[in-house]
Amino acid sequence: MNKNKIINDPVYGFISIKTPLIFDVIEHPYFQRLRYIKQLGMTHLVYPGALHTRFHHALGAMHLMQLAVEHLQSKGHLITNDECEAACIAILLHDIGHGPFSHALEHSIVKGISHEDIGKLIISKINDDFNNRLSLALQIFNNNYYKKFLYQLISGQLDLDRLDYLNRDSFFSGVTEGMVSSDRIIKLLNIKNGNLVVEEKGIYSIEKFLIARRLMYWQVYLHKTVIAAEQMLVKILERARELANNGTELFATPTFKHFLYNTVSITHFINEIQHINNFVKLDDSDIMASIKVWCNHTDFILSTLCNNLINRQLYKVEISTGIPDFEKTESLKQKISEKLNINYKDSSYFIFTDIINNVAYNTRQGNINVLMKNGDLQDITIASDYSNLEALAKSVTKNILCYTKV
Amino acid sequence: MNKNKIINDPVYGFISIKTPLIFDVIEHPYFQRLRYIKQLGMTHLVYPGALHTRFHHALGAMHLMQLAVEHLQSKGHLITNDECEAACIAILLHDIGHGPFSHALEHSIVKGISHEDIGKLIISKINDDFNNRLSLALQIFNNNYYKKFLYQLISGQLDLDRLDYLNRDSFFSGVTEGMVSSDRIIKLLNIKNGNLVVEEKGIYSIEKFLIARRLMYWQVYLHKTVIAAEQMLVKILERARELANNGTELFATPTFKHFLYNTVSITHFINEIQHINNFVKLDDSDIMASIKVWCNHTDFILSTLCNNLINRQLYKVEISTGIPDFEKTESLKQKISEKLNINYKDSSYFIFTDIINNVAYNTRQGNINVLMKNGDLQDITIASDYSNLEALAKSVTKNILCYTKV
Amino acid sequence: MNKNKIINDPVYGFISIKTPLIFDVIEHPYFQRLRYIKQLGMTHLVYPGALHTRFHHALGAMHLMQLAVEHLQSKGHLITNDECEAACIAILLHDIGHGPFSHALEHSIVKGISHEDIGKLIISKINDDFNNRLSLALQIFNNNYYKKFLYQLISGQLDLDRLDYLNRDSFFSGVTEGMVSSDRIIKLLNIKNGNLVVEEKGIYSIEKFLIARRLMYWQVYLHKTVIAAEQMLVKILERARELANNGTELFATPTFKHFLYNTVSITHFINEIQHINNFVKLDDSDIMASIKVWCNHTDFILSTLCNNLINRQLYKVEISTGIPDFEKTESLKQKISEKLNINYKDSSYFIFTDIINNVAYNTRQGNINVLMKNGDLQDITIASDYSNLEALAKSVTKNILCYTKV
Amino acid sequence: MNKNKIINDPVYGFISIKTPLIFDVIEHPYFQRLRYIKQLGMTHLVYPGALHTRFHHALGAMHLMQLAVEHLQSKGHLITNDECEAACIAILLHDIGHGPFSHALEHSIVKGISHEDIGKLIISKINDDFNNRLSLALQIFNNNYYKKFLYQLISGQLDLDRLDYLNRDSFFSGVTEGMVSSDRIIKLLNIKNGNLVVEEKGIYSIEKFLIARRLMYWQVYLHKTVIAAEQMLVKILERARELANNGTELFATPTFKHFLYNTVSITHFINEIQHINNFVKLDDSDIMASIKVWCNHTDFILSTLCNNLINRQLYKVEISTGIPDFEKTESLKQKISEKLNINYKDSSYFIFTDIINNVAYNTRQGNINVLMKNGDLQDITIASDYSNLEALAKSVTKNILCYTKV
Repeated sequence: MNKNKIINDPVYGFISIKTPLIFDVIEHPYFQRLRYIKQLGMTHLVYPGALHTRFHHALGAMHLMQLAVEHLQSKGHLITNDECEAACIAILLHDIGHGPFSHALEHSIVKGISHEDIGKLIISKINDDFNNRLSLALQIFNNNYYKKFLYQLISGQLDLDRLDYLNRDSFFSGVTEGMVSSDRIIKLLNIKNGNLVVEEKGIYSIEKFLIARRLMYWQVYLHKTVIAAEQMLVKILERARELANNGTELFATPTFKHFLYNTVSITHFINEIQHINNFVKLDDSDIMASIKVWCNHTDFILSTLCNNLINRQLYKVEISTGIPDFEKTESLKQKISEKLNINYKDSSYFIFTDIINNVAYNTRQGNINVLMKNGDLQDITIASDYSNLEALAKSVTKNILCYTKV
Repeated sequence: MNKNKIINDPVYGFISIKTPLIFDVIEHPYFQRLRYIKQLGMTHLVYPGALHTRFHHALGAMHLMQLAVEHLQSKGHLITNDECEAACIAILLHDIGHGPFSHALEHSIVKGISHEDIGKLIISKINDDFNNRLSLALQIFNNNYYKKFLYQLISGQLDLDRLDYLNRDSFFSGVTEGMVSSDRIIKLLNIKNGNLVVEEKGIYSIEKFLIARRLMYWQVYLHKTVIAAEQMLVKILERARELANNGTELFATPTFKHFLYNTVSITHFINEIQHINNFVKLDDSDIMASIKVWCNHTDFILSTLCNNLINRQLYKVEISTGIPDFEKTESLKQKISEKLNINYKDSSYFIFTDIINNVAYNTRQGNINVLMKNGDLQDITIASDYSNLEALAKSVTKNILCYTKV
Repeated sequence: MNKNKIINDPVYGFISIKTPLIFDVIEHPYFQRLRYIKQLGMTHLVYPGALHTRFHHALGAMHLMQLAVEHLQSKGHLITNDECEAACIAILLHDIGHGPFSHALEHSIVKGISHEDIGKLIISKINDDFNNRLSLALQIFNNNYYKKFLYQLISGQLDLDRLDYLNRDSFFSGVTEGMVSSDRIIKLLNIKNGNLVVEEKGIYSIEKFLIARRLMYWQVYLHKTVIAAEQMLVKILERARELANNGTELFATPTFKHFLYNTVSITHFINEIQHINNFVKLDDSDIMASIKVWCNHTDFILSTLCNNLINRQLYKVEISTGIPDFEKTESLKQKISEKLNINYKDSSYFIFTDIINNVAYNTRQGNINVLMKNGDLQDITIASDYSNLEALAKSVTKNILCYTKV
Repeated sequence: MNKNKIINDPVYGFISIKTPLIFDVIEHPYFQRLRYIKQLGMTHLVYPGALHTRFHHALGAMHLMQLAVEHLQSKGHLITNDECEAACIAILLHDIGHGPFSHALEHSIVKGISHEDIGKLIISKINDDFNNRLSLALQIFNNNYYKKFLYQLISGQLDLDRLDYLNRDSFFSGVTEGMVSSDRIIKLLNIKNGNLVVEEKGIYSIEKFLIARRLMYWQVYLHKTVIAAEQMLVKILERARELANNGTELFATPTFKHFLYNTVSITHFINEIQHINNFVKLDDSDIMASIKVWCNHTDFILSTLCNNLINRQLYKVEISTGIPDFEKTESLKQKISEKLNINYKDSSYFIFTDIINNVAYNTRQGNINVLMKNGDLQDITIASDYSNLEALAKSVTKNILCYTKV
């Protein structure tokens, strides 16, 4: 069987699968599941093109990894074929732990365990299936490999994951302003003392990358209507779980039921094989099919929320720098309780506040180091003569108030 | 409420919703349902970007209608605002009758009734909801309006439906060779004696449009692996229905169950409201969620087919000009029966033949008339000095043989 | 004659000429001359695609003006057809005063008179040819018309001139990072109290526009090799004029000779018709053809500089924040004098310093006002929560040292 | 000095210069000259973006050569680094013999010697400058190397020259319909028995390539106004030479004068070094600068033609299948003679007929061979089930009648 495949990708043109092992990893059912998990949850309700999946993103990130490795090799750095293959596999699998609707439901389906932790469990299961042939990939993925730059290409301030998702999310949403020149940024990468650095002439491209990322946050990822839809999804899950806990009958696929009717702690998740076995079968369609059925459920709150989501009657969302006015909030709550004829406590399904934030350049995730022409390393915020780039390093926190229009 | 919306579209940049009535039609739940129906069925198994929906396509076609009307007005043809709005609504609704996975399951869910016929029923229901305010749109849609060119813009050899789907399918699949210059083709349109025509200088663009369409057929719509996946979907539905008819218990959402356990004839469908009421709730997620559950069904045939689809173990497809060799087919059938331990009759779930065909320029759907500089009209096949363009008008029929690798 | 033309433009697809008057302005020989004046001087020596002309840029800016006017009309602002036509003509003519190689030779061919001043003279001559039918355009152009926003669309911090040149220069140079979403920015424009404003939701797009502009400055307009080539052009003109002043015979086209052998002051230029009459015949080809001939001139300095330009042996350019080290410069000067066997004074043709600067957001050219949702106006640097956007308002000045490698 | 350069190219993103020898060839003055020779002559009068040069096209073709060689290597075919470098150099130099305005003036400046023949002389001179280090490139270029496919990549029915110029001409003219997917076509190439072939699955892409080429011919290369402008250029040169032969004084640069005042036969050109030495200094600017001066020449015919070109008062062009009507032509001729007050013979500068033709698939230049899945080779016209593709192999000849509007 020919395992040298070329896949059409509207973002980069063509993506090549270069080794049989990479081919087999992509064919693995756990990876194929990502075909059915949208990269941007319910964002398609605002940007109808944003239906692309974690599957496609993972392939795109792998493609950029191939380009980056080839570029670094051409700069004279030694990267073996095995390392290249392992880095490709590591980045292919970096999002394998995502559940339905990616971040939107990250803590709604399995509480207290992040997609990264689930990912590590799944990768280790895949490694078993491959008789440990992914061990080098795992080492890189867990930052246990001595060539640190390989890890930094997967996870850092300027990694290929971000390059791909910015490009891909911009492309499919049609918000072209978020596009970054991945080709150019990759050509600016270099290695210094074993770490990934950017060459000095790339300063302006990096500034632009940071600004593009910031733009995507406010224009797409934290768009009001996107927040409204994803919060509604969260509230639906919350209500369904509450009903399930009370023994109410709910239509759902068996795997989805598993997570609705059981509260799975992180310890259970790690130690009992059934949980992960159910998780790897779950995707967006389980949730959507169930929500559509719940539109006719006898529980007023559940059916109302579900109908609102399906018919796109989303929360109104107000974003503010300060905390929303308490009196206004309370009065809205009162009004909603009365209109919907529900008690005060349950009104929190229809009106609530939350916090969102965004840091364009998060120094906790490591620096972007610039290799100056004289050989020195400088942090991007210093190397740029746009002296106040550091402003991007400040976290921007905003309050949101969501409520149903009644 | 502000109903003048602008929607980001990666294909055309921005799509404007120009009137409140158009806005309300888009908001209607029957139209919103199209958000969850993929334009190209299972094509995403080959082209991972091809996840775009009937919803997005309908908006795109409406956008082209706006451009076409503006262009024809600038050429001096009278088109009123009401006619423009109605034409936009008509093209918005042209695919409203599609069910899950579009063409892939067109005759599997409701037998003997085409998506066009279902569409007419649904449009008439929407028109009721709008107190007959869509009547002009309906007249245009049914080719009952005296300005024939409006209908021809929706449905003909060179309609805006085709322009949009060629562009959109090319764009999202990444098969850029299928892109057509919709901007340019629209600028070449004119009206002569009340009919849509193309100006002489556009001959080369039309040739290119026909060739692009032909390319998309063989490279995307009739791609071997796409055929394999969609045929598997068909066979799964066929088996599920067979089991349902025998009273076997099958997991499914209630609306999907309605169509599995009832054989709905066209007469029933038209006369009994329950069928259409179920149909308008059905989308891709009902099918996918059910198929995933059926992977564990006790019926060997059903669970095997479902597992094969989900894990992408698709049929092998052979395309040939002649009829597949009978002996070879029989011997394969034998082998499959034995290997899978099933009877000869049931082996047709795992090996079968079918016919596919494609006509690039189908004269039964009307001609592409070229307006020569001297004012004459000529059919494109005559106007082109590429004398043999007529070859495109010949139907290309091929035989396919699909079988499970055992 | 049909004056409704459509012009193919790789940047925007199609540009329409909407009125016969606009058509005639474009046909005027003074405007046609812009076909032979490159937008970016010698930038093509670094970016080989950057051969686009002032002609193309002017058409592009006119196209954006049409879009902007249509958009503002759709927002309910009254703009008459005459005003729209006049605004289109005004922006068409905004660069008509440019001479060969645009900015590169701006003060080399005619000293002490800017391209804007020359432009005003030329526009007034064209207006004469049109029997004052361009008077409204002139009023807008000179900011004498009461609808200030029309002027602001032509000349301001966020005008259509900039939108077009950023896009066009990015496009043709291939530095895609400089692309801005002109479509989107135009859709964000509005009018408040007669002035052009940007709606609040556009803040991130404006930030990105400012950053893109900054990137283009350092990556293209002030690229080292571009500076080197354009400084060489300046030095060649300087030497040629020096020789001409001394009565040395120089090959040149008659119109070019006019400016080489006469020192035309601004007063002469304005009062004596011969100067402008010669100027409107001058373009890049006069200069290039002459320089190629001068490669064989007996004057060592002139022929050396010309050969260096034609054979792309450009100055080495060093950019620094501080003033270049005096001793280093003097020692280089010494070395060059000796190597080339020229006197100390003449060595300034082969080694010299200069200053370059760039302000991304120049408040002297007016503000970018943001229309907040509550109806207030705020300057972009305040409206942005990227609090330090004001850093972009600081002028970045750098020193350059140029010298011939010997 | 770092000779590993990356050049921004709007068509392909980035073009890499991979070896020092390639770098030095590009730096050679004879190659740099191509920077000043437009790829498409006067086409920019119709498509204002079409200012790209032979320099840029040569780089683009070299880039495709690199991709093609890498692809063929990945298919298992042995191509050494030296062969790759030589093939790159050979294609870089394939158009080095073009003079000002490329094809437009091909037989006007030097009569009876094609750009290919001039090219061979120039390449051989460059090879001398490089001490025969280009010998392998020359062997490939002249089809004297045993790996025939390398020559076929440079010159054949489906060579990289064509791929680049179709893409580049489409891109810069804005006629996007002419774009071909060079990436995809290259991925379809293979080698069989030492010859270049296309894999069977590429049939539709090849069809589309041939149709795109045909479209570019009629829409760009043979566009009426392009013909009009280029014929005017030819007639200007013809008149200037006639005047020169009669001893009339004409302004021109020395190198241009050389060709105006001497009639250089092919034998002279080959044997006397002065001719080639002048030729390699000639570019578009020599011609344009002179034509602008000739606008004021005392010869009525010359100055009229020159003014008409500069002010874009071009010939009216009529294209017809049959020979233009003799009586109509004669009567026009009569009218023009009278109006312009010139004699009958000289009227041929203002009215004349000519022939243009185009073959999309010219079998005299070799076949496009398709490698069928069974290993057989078939000509594309047979392999395609679009049975009449062979129609593209018929030459389309048309008559043109050009005349000045009086």
